[in-house]
Amino acid sequence: MQSAHRMVQSQSNPFAEAFSSSLPLPSILDPDFADALRHVLDNPGSLVRPRLVFQMATAYGMDRVAAQDLAIALEYFHTASLLFDDLPCMDDAQVRRGVPCTHVLFGEEGAILSALALINRAYALLWSAVAACPRARQQQALTFVEQSLGVGGLLNGQSLDLHFKKLPRTRETVERIAMGKTVSLIWLTLALPAMLGGAGARELQQIKRISTLWGLSYQIVDDLKDVRQSAVQSGKTPARDALLGRPNIAEAIGVRGAVQRLTRLIDLGDAVLLRLLASRPELGFLERLRDELQLEMARVRREALALAEKGEL
Amino acid sequence: MQSAHRMVQSQSNPFAEAFSSSLPLPSILDPDFADALRHVLDNPGSLVRPRLVFQMATAYGMDRVAAQDLAIALEYFHTASLLFDDLPCMDDAQVRRGVPCTHVLFGEEGAILSALALINRAYALLWSAVAACPRARQQQALTFVEQSLGVGGLLNGQSLDLHFKKLPRTRETVERIAMGKTVSLIWLTLALPAMLGGAGARELQQIKRISTLWGLSYQIVDDLKDVRQSAVQSGKTPARDALLGRPNIAEAIGVRGAVQRLTRLIDLGDAVLLRLLASRPELGFLERLRDELQLEMARVRREALALAEKGEL
Repeated sequence: MQSAHRMVQSQSNPFAEAFSSSLPLPSILDPDFADALRHVLDNPGSLVRPRLVFQMATAYGMDRVAAQDLAIALEYFHTASLLFDDLPCMDDAQVRRGVPCTHVLFGEEGAILSALALINRAYALLWSAVAACPRARQQQALTFVEQSLGVGGLLNGQSLDLHFKKLPRTRETVERIAMGKTVSLIWLTLALPAMLGGAGARELQQIKRISTLWGLSYQIVDDLKDVRQSAVQSGKTPARDALLGRPNIAEAIGVRGAVQRLTRLIDLGDAVLLRLLASRPELGFLERLRDELQLEMARVRREALALAEKGEL
Repeated sequence: MQSAHRMVQSQSNPFAEAFSSSLPLPSILDPDFADALRHVLDNPGSLVRPRLVFQMATAYGMDRVAAQDLAIALEYFHTASLLFDDLPCMDDAQVRRGVPCTHVLFGEEGAILSALALINRAYALLWSAVAACPRARQQQALTFVEQSLGVGGLLNGQSLDLHFKKLPRTRETVERIAMGKTVSLIWLTLALPAMLGGAGARELQQIKRISTLWGLSYQIVDDLKDVRQSAVQSGKTPARDALLGRPNIAEAIGVRGAVQRLTRLIDLGDAVLLRLLASRPELGFLERLRDELQLEMARVRREALALAEKGEL
């Protein structure tokens, strides 16, 4: 997922400033806490997510201020989830977004409090965005957020991920975990702005389906990269899945099986996207996203198959 | 604070069932995660807070379902803050609410994910409560929540608490930290339901003032108990402040100074309560709360002064 992000990051991203400034730090703030938060806010990552939220929201006619609030809210939730994931008791990562992890520089307490500050602010921004939308859609949207982030979504995915050793090492298990850990947030990225913007039930289903297919594809790409232990290309602390006993589809069904599954998911996604764009041509930017993803996926697939041929995998 | 809670707990509390059942666990939930959450939800503590929220909300005419949602939401926020506080990187506590801490039984990751599940659910319950109130009050209430829980409130108090060693050991510092750590949540307990119920600006000021005075009094009682290292009476892992370098007003200005300050805060609180009840007699239940607190405070004050006389403090 990182390299696809990098590619996009090289284009200028108007959300870097909003990411940095949407959590104002009061003058009374504990200096250590302020330092930890500045480290988080000054290292925003690729910001692909807020760009997509904003494009989706404005394509559905949402007010631009509300669209930006929603975009930053979801990026803050995402960033908070990374701060927690990286903790010693979870993935024990050292590097994130090209810089040392927050807990490495400011202690676990600094990382935890920063994550909670992001979450607190994210709910406020989310509420602002939701309050600007018609009342009839508000409850549905807030329930969707609760389900995607909570015990039925992201949090459960994270817990299953940590306890994967106790579960059957099958494709189904690996994908169930990816549904929680990865797909939940992509649902929010693409389907929440559509929902708030008034998308109909059929369209919402299509958007969620595309999110699911792309999210699972993303995860396979990530897993293939991990198996290759390619520290340089993935930008994360390398080869962690095997080390930590974390789910990895290439370990569950082999590299060729994973590549086959990836191809199948991409084809399915293309078919749904075609139907969605037929009724909603203004979502054409999703084709560009699809192309970016598929270029990255094609590269990883090629490399994985080449290594599998050579018997190195 | 614990003993006052115990006293109340012995009366039957209708919120134990709601506390336990307001975060439904889906069947797909990771079994380890479910165990950790059940441990949290089955050990609710005294539940003084939700009772107060409910009394306050219904006194202001709020719908009973919304009042209960608000009560449980605030108790979940509070419980989440305890789960984080107890972590090894913060207070490293072993016992909470009379049972082993969640991180002791289910690992730090179990405690963190449980706390996040409570927070996620708390926001959903909060929204339900807020959505049932007139639109004009909604934004004010949500901003109040954000400020009380965020970098200007609870989170900052927690961070200052952890970094107290770097700060001047004065009454002002100790009380500034207590404003964040303790008073923020008492503001929400008493002032948020009043705000949502339509209290006027002057009344809200009085309620916040009472919350501040009682919160700071509470903290002094807690600090005096800590200095006495009375593990049995406080119900927490004992004598932690000195051990951890945490703020304690009795350490900052001496036991006699702390007792004097406590007396002053109680008197000020009584005066404001008198004015509030003159215009709002339906808040008479606050007198009973005041009496409960003052009985507890009188006991701690007596014991502290007796020990100070004997030169043991």
